[in-house]
Amino acid sequence: MKIGRFLISGKETYGFVKDDHIATKEEIITKTGIPIPLSIKEFLFDGWYNEVISQNPKLDYSVKLSNAKILAPIPNPPKVICLAFNYVDHAKEQNLTPPTDPAIVLIPRTTLNGTNSDIVCPSFVKQLDYEVELAIIIGEGCKNIDEKDAMNTVFGYMAFNDVSARDIQAQDKQFGRAKGFDTFAPCGPWITTSDEIPDPQNLKMTTKVNGVVRQNSNTANMFIKIPSIVSKLSKVMTLEKGDIISTGTPAGVMLNKPNAVFLKDGDKIEMEIEKIGRLENTVRFVQ
Amino acid sequence: MKIGRFLISGKETYGFVKDDHIATKEEIITKTGIPIPLSIKEFLFDGWYNEVISQNPKLDYSVKLSNAKILAPIPNPPKVICLAFNYVDHAKEQNLTPPTDPAIVLIPRTTLNGTNSDIVCPSFVKQLDYEVELAIIIGEGCKNIDEKDAMNTVFGYMAFNDVSARDIQAQDKQFGRAKGFDTFAPCGPWITTSDEIPDPQNLKMTTKVNGVVRQNSNTANMFIKIPSIVSKLSKVMTLEKGDIISTGTPAGVMLNKPNAVFLKDGDKIEMEIEKIGRLENTVRFVQ
Repeated sequence: MKIGRFLISGKETYGFVKDDHIATKEEIITKTGIPIPLSIKEFLFDGWYNEVISQNPKLDYSVKLSNAKILAPIPNPPKVICLAFNYVDHAKEQNLTPPTDPAIVLIPRTTLNGTNSDIVCPSFVKQLDYEVELAIIIGEGCKNIDEKDAMNTVFGYMAFNDVSARDIQAQDKQFGRAKGFDTFAPCGPWITTSDEIPDPQNLKMTTKVNGVVRQNSNTANMFIKIPSIVSKLSKVMTLEKGDIISTGTPAGVMLNKPNAVFLKDGDKIEMEIEKIGRLENTVRFVQ
Repeated sequence: MKIGRFLISGKETYGFVKDDHIATKEEIITKTGIPIPLSIKEFLFDGWYNEVISQNPKLDYSVKLSNAKILAPIPNPPKVICLAFNYVDHAKEQNLTPPTDPAIVLIPRTTLNGTNSDIVCPSFVKQLDYEVELAIIIGEGCKNIDEKDAMNTVFGYMAFNDVSARDIQAQDKQFGRAKGFDTFAPCGPWITTSDEIPDPQNLKMTTKVNGVVRQNSNTANMFIKIPSIVSKLSKVMTLEKGDIISTGTPAGVMLNKPNAVFLKDGDKIEMEIEKIGRLENTVRFVQ
């Protein structure tokens, strides 16, 4: 299934997506009689989603996607974890030894943003960069989980743009502030459940800026694969329902490039991950 | 006021602390008739606390503190933000230029821990270190706030031990994993409201390990002061009610010391910040 969060006629809702149409929460309630909750996080992770799916309901998908504003799928995850370096090609372009353990940066939930919304950047940032990433969404809490069981905790996937202020990253050394600006984490466009993605380690991923390809890689190039990421992180911290883990970016970002062309006001970023979907965001610099 | 979260006879509650006694939520409800909520976060930041205080209720403080297990004051803050380097004396011992902007590391809420609880560390960590810090709790959401107004958003203070795995910190460069282990952020012992701390930039702070003084400094040694921290962070991200910002540690940690004595199983860490309180935690290594 594809499950997203939306603003329709000014009202927030969530629902299933199929072929450019939405079956909203309200339609799901009407068709199934199941009083699913207001919060998408509760719906997905507290048993309601499974209850709805087990009914195999016949839904009309009665709202056109073009009549909805698409929001970040989960507004209030317990954690948003970004892997710092995890692609063979990106490590090569940055002259870094690929890691054996996941180096991570947590970013605040206030970064989360939907597709077709602006990336709003204060003008004191001078080197704004993009990073296409595959993000996983944890569906079941876990601690100290083995690699062989780790995929059972993955509810689904989404595309994730880990927007980064490279000048602030260089100044701070720690990346928390550079990646922590409001709107710096467009994600979605919706969650694609893991049953639809039998091999998450073979998905094409691209970034275009103003129509020009900048990143063009494949999740096969991840150094630490998803089961290992989940297992290794769970040996550090309890993973919780709704946690977002973005699994690192491939080559093609502007970081440390000699003739770097950083993002400027009005730039249009298009990211696509095969089977997962597209993110389109425009950069807007503000005083 | 001092407001803490407790386990009393196996039941979670919160309440006011005075002279080794607690006025619990249940007592506050009985004495005021105000149906304050289950969640301390809602109590503090959604108007209930102010309503109770405005009644100036006569409370009995009928539960002995020694009969309660003290928990981390807020279990589910939207963000936990730690400043990386912010003390003049710590920057000096580490040969670092003090920063002009706050370099930050976000850590997950699953790190939060109370006083008198163990710091539980997997045995793959080889260089475990302590960091006494003054943490602030944001009481009012804000964005782009000026320094002169920033203190109005600070609800209160607590002590904070920013426990860090230095070997993982060195390996990852980013500190998210090194500081992100469950139980690595003992804090409290309770929240002391800002009206009780007219000058948060003049508080003695100490760390003892097994009775031996390791850190002995004063919040006066912060490079970026609290109003500037809040203002500068709010120019990056929306600060939300309940956010915890820990303001950095002074000199005396083991990081990069030639004859570093890192924490070992059974070590007892005592931290104290003047007017704020004490944290006592024992280190326990587990397989």
